[in-house]
Order: sequence, then structure tokens, then C-alpha cells
Amino acid sequence: MRFMVAHDGQNGGHGTALYVVDGGDAFRLTGQDGFSGTDIAAIIEADENQVGALCDAARSGTSVPVGSLTPALPLNRFGKILCLGLNYVDHVKEGGYDIPTYPAMFIRMPSSMLAAGAPMVKPDCSDRLDYEVELMVVIGKGGRHISEEAALDHVFGYTVFNDGSIRDYQRKTHQWTPGKNFDATGALGPTVVTADELPSGASGLKIESRLNGTVMQTAKTSDMMWPVAKTIAIVSEFATLEPGDMIAMGTPPGVGHARTPPVFMFPGDTVEVEVEGIGICTNPIISEQDAAKAGAGN
Amino acid sequence: MRFMVAHDGQNGGHGTALYVVDGGDAFRLTGQDGFSGTDIAAIIEADENQVGALCDAARSGTSVPVGSLTPALPLNRFGKILCLGLNYVDHVKEGGYDIPTYPAMFIRMPSSMLAAGAPMVKPDCSDRLDYEVELMVVIGKGGRHISEEAALDHVFGYTVFNDGSIRDYQRKTHQWTPGKNFDATGALGPTVVTADELPSGASGLKIESRLNGTVMQTAKTSDMMWPVAKTIAIVSEFATLEPGDMIAMGTPPGVGHARTPPVFMFPGDTVEVEVEGIGICTNPIISEQDAAKAGAGN
Repeated sequence: MRFMVAHDGQNGGHGTALYVVDGGDAFRLTGQDGFSGTDIAAIIEADENQVGALCDAARSGTSVPVGSLTPALPLNRFGKILCLGLNYVDHVKEGGYDIPTYPAMFIRMPSSMLAAGAPMVKPDCSDRLDYEVELMVVIGKGGRHISEEAALDHVFGYTVFNDGSIRDYQRKTHQWTPGKNFDATGALGPTVVTADELPSGASGLKIESRLNGTVMQTAKTSDMMWPVAKTIAIVSEFATLEPGDMIAMGTPPGVGHARTPPVFMFPGDTVEVEVEGIGICTNPIISEQDAAKAGAGN
Repeated sequence: MRFMVAHDGQNGGHGTALYVVDGGDAFRLTGQDGFSGTDIAAIIEADENQVGALCDAARSGTSVPVGSLTPALPLNRFGKILCLGLNYVDHVKEGGYDIPTYPAMFIRMPSSMLAAGAPMVKPDCSDRLDYEVELMVVIGKGGRHISEEAALDHVFGYTVFNDGSIRDYQRKTHQWTPGKNFDATGALGPTVVTADELPSGASGLKIESRLNGTVMQTAKTSDMMWPVAKTIAIVSEFATLEPGDMIAMGTPPGVGHARTPPVFMFPGDTVEVEVEGIGICTNPIISEQDAAKAGAGN
């Protein structure tokens, strides 16, 4: 199944509503048969059979065009957002790093995230906003010390992530935290696709980014050094995973700062990231000043 | 004022309750005059005059000895937990790092935190669990682009933090994330002291750690390269701070892995971290196996 969270057109536009998506049609789940969930967490927590019945009931009613919805972040409240830094060999090389024997990991704070379609903010303090297309894993069943063999049973589904990075702040010290945590730089969504709709571990999918229509990164998810199952085993060796936690699987080569000449994103640009079979996350770039005016973010 | 969150002795021991502490006496705020808050967030969100009146009313009633309470984490639900890695010159040198010109920052996930008094867990996979005493800032008023001059107005108060680190996992790659995020390794509390009770920016306070009663680290918070106000300005350049967010201010020299011979913590040890005028956070070390048996954490 494919789910989307959208800003709610009802009740004066406040809050979010959850939809199940079939092709170009979106069927509202929030409010259907008394279902009060407004984000993906509500589906993760619900009984699988109930979700199936709920979706069937919604599909028997009226739909709206997916394109008429304004996507919101898939979760109203994030748990962990753990990100792999170097997971595609050729991206490791273009960044000047040695091939790692353990995944380089950092954490994103919820304040850095924005929904598909929302403006991604180039901060005033830097001219080095870069794109990074990534596969994002959404955990369905929590646990610690999850074996590689059992790991995919813990995946609820997948979505698309643009790990927007402020390169000079990322490398101000050896710890990447600031450059990965500027407000409204990590774009997520719009669709969360359940694992059963995709190849095992979401492997073998085309993954691509485009800046103003020009392809910048293109690869296969099977190029990842640490596939999804192995990554879940590694992460859960140190941390208990919980439903709704997310793991970003790293980006393939072709990022802007490693190009000759370098390419960065500026207000007026449009960036698209896509993972085959999951969806396209498109975001315009705006200035911090315009974002402040619009109260942008998610 | 000094606040403590404790596991609730009422209602079968579920949940937490909030207390105001005077010396050795704790006065229960939860339930006082209809106040329903059960953690520090409720105080941060409340009107200052209401909090004063609530504390006065509680103090006119009965108290319990502070020692009779079982501390809980100060927040039931964490926001950001942003940590400075290298903020005391002599700690930078003992770790073999260059003196940075910008603070090295990492993020802790809530799953890594535990309350004062609770067992800190040495994982099975490593024998390199190290202590790090730190001053922890609790943000009271949020904001972005907070100036250094205005920064201390954004501080609610301070608490004590033991940034328990698994050194071999911290240095598996250049990103410290895994070694700083093992379950139940970051000890916090037990008391949150409002900023007005301490010197400006909590500067000039003695900061110390003790392992089984032996002093391991001792310094002054005035030794920090980036004081609290400057740090808030730096962080809020990239991220919007929100009430309840926390910033850990880094640790002074004397950590275990940099000693000759190295000193690490093992089940049976007791570690204490103290910041003058704020409190002492004491935790026993237990094995992962015993933690699993006891359902330890917070």
C-alpha cells in the first residue's frame, strides 16, 4: 500500500490527514469509520487487518486527485532519524574519504526536516546547499539486537529523502552535525510505500536526483555497501529501534560539491529526488529571508 | 528554584511526578492546585508567576525527603539533545585532536538516556565504557539566530550529564554517533536548577567526576572554550531551538580512555558526576544481561 500525509483542507486547514493512494487517486483514511489517525505512525501502530479493512472502506468512497493534496511530513512527531553518510563506493571516493569498514552515521533533528513540495531553505550564512537523494527506511517493529536475517521483518516501508547539506558547515569540524541540521533542509516524502510493494530490502531500484531537470545523480539501490537488512542489524547493536524510527541509506555519487566546477542550489532552483517505485520528492529552493516571510518549513 | 522529576509512588508506581526541592525536602507539585504537569516541560511551558504560586502552595504543605524519591528523566519526551564534543582545551589534547575553531557537535537519541540513580549499561560488545561529566543546558525559550548577548535569556536552567561513551564504537568511523548512542549510557539529573540560582551562564562552577569514589576529572566550567551564551548563538545559527531542548557543554580532561593505563567502567562500579551548585548524578554500572533482566533504562 501507498500512504500519503497531507495538510488538511478541512477545519480551516489546520492539522494533517492520512490518505491511501492508488495511482493518481487519494482516498482519505482520517475520519473513515471513526479512524482518528492523521499520520503514518497511526498506521504503523494499528492492526494490519484493521488497516486493510480501513483502506478497502475508503476506496469504496470518493477520491481526490493526489495532485490536489499538499503533502505534509509523514510523521507528526519524529523518533530517531539516523543517517548513513558513506554507503555508495563512488560517493565515498568523490568526497575524498577512505572506504569505511563500518557505516559513518549521523543524526538529523526533526527541526531540519520538511515535506515534499515545501520550500527547502538556503541559509543566508552559506552558498553551499547541496542535494543528496537517498532511500529512507521506516521502521515498523522495534527491537534491539535484530539479526540481519530478521531485519526486513522490522521494516514498515520506504520513502524518498533529500539529505540537503550545507557543505561548509558540514566540514567545519570532523563532526557533520551542523551541516546536516540546518532548518528545513531535509526533504521527505511524499509517499510511504509498504515493504511488500517493493523488492526485498528495496534493492535494485533506480535512484536519481535532478536539479532544474538535469540529472545529477543516478544509481541503483543495489550499489549500497550496507544494504537495509545489514544496516538495521548494525544500528540495533547499539540502539533500540522503535516504530516510526527512520534510517536514511546514504547517497550515490554526483553530489554538487564534488563536481568540477561545483554545483550548489540557490533560490529559484527546483530539486527532485526519486526512488523507482516509491516516488518523487520535489522542492523549490528559497532564501532564508523569503522562508521567514512565509513561515516556511513543513 | 530546584526541580526534580521522580517515578510516581502513587497509582501503582506508573508515571512520573514533579517536585520542587529545598535542601533535603521535596514538595510535590503534580496534583497541587490541579496542576497536572509531570515533568520539567510542564514548568517551562507554564507562566512564571503561576509556577511561583504553585511552589509556594506546595511548600506550605507536607514534604518528603529527597532521598526517598527515585529520580526519573527530567523530560518525559525529549526534543533535541545536542552535545559539544571538544570544549575544554586539555580534553582536546588528551584525545589527540587539534584545537578546533568551531565546536564539534553530535546528537544523542533519547533511547541513549537514563535517569540519575538508574543503572548505566555496559554493552556486551565492548569493554570500553567511559565517563564524561558535563554541564547540561535546558532551553526555556526557543528561537533562531539568537545573539550571544540575548542567549542567556533563552536558558531555563541547568542539570548534570554523564555522557557515557563506548570508545571503540565512537571511533569506528570519524562520526562519533554509535559510541555516543548506546542504550542507557547518557545519565541525566537528578535536579534541574533554574538559571537565576547560579552564576551567569553557569560559569566558574567546579565540575567533577568520580569513579568508585576516586576523583577522575576536576575542572571549572569557566575552562570551556565556548561558554553557554556563545554556544546557543552558534547552534541557533543553523537550528531553531525549542523549549526543553538540551545542549551538553562538553567534558574536561581526565576521561578514562586517555589515561595511562586506560580506565573503563565495568559492572559493579559506581560513577558520580557533579556540577557545583547543581547536583550529583550517581549511577551504578551493570551488564547488558542484567539490564535486560531488570528492564533497566529509566
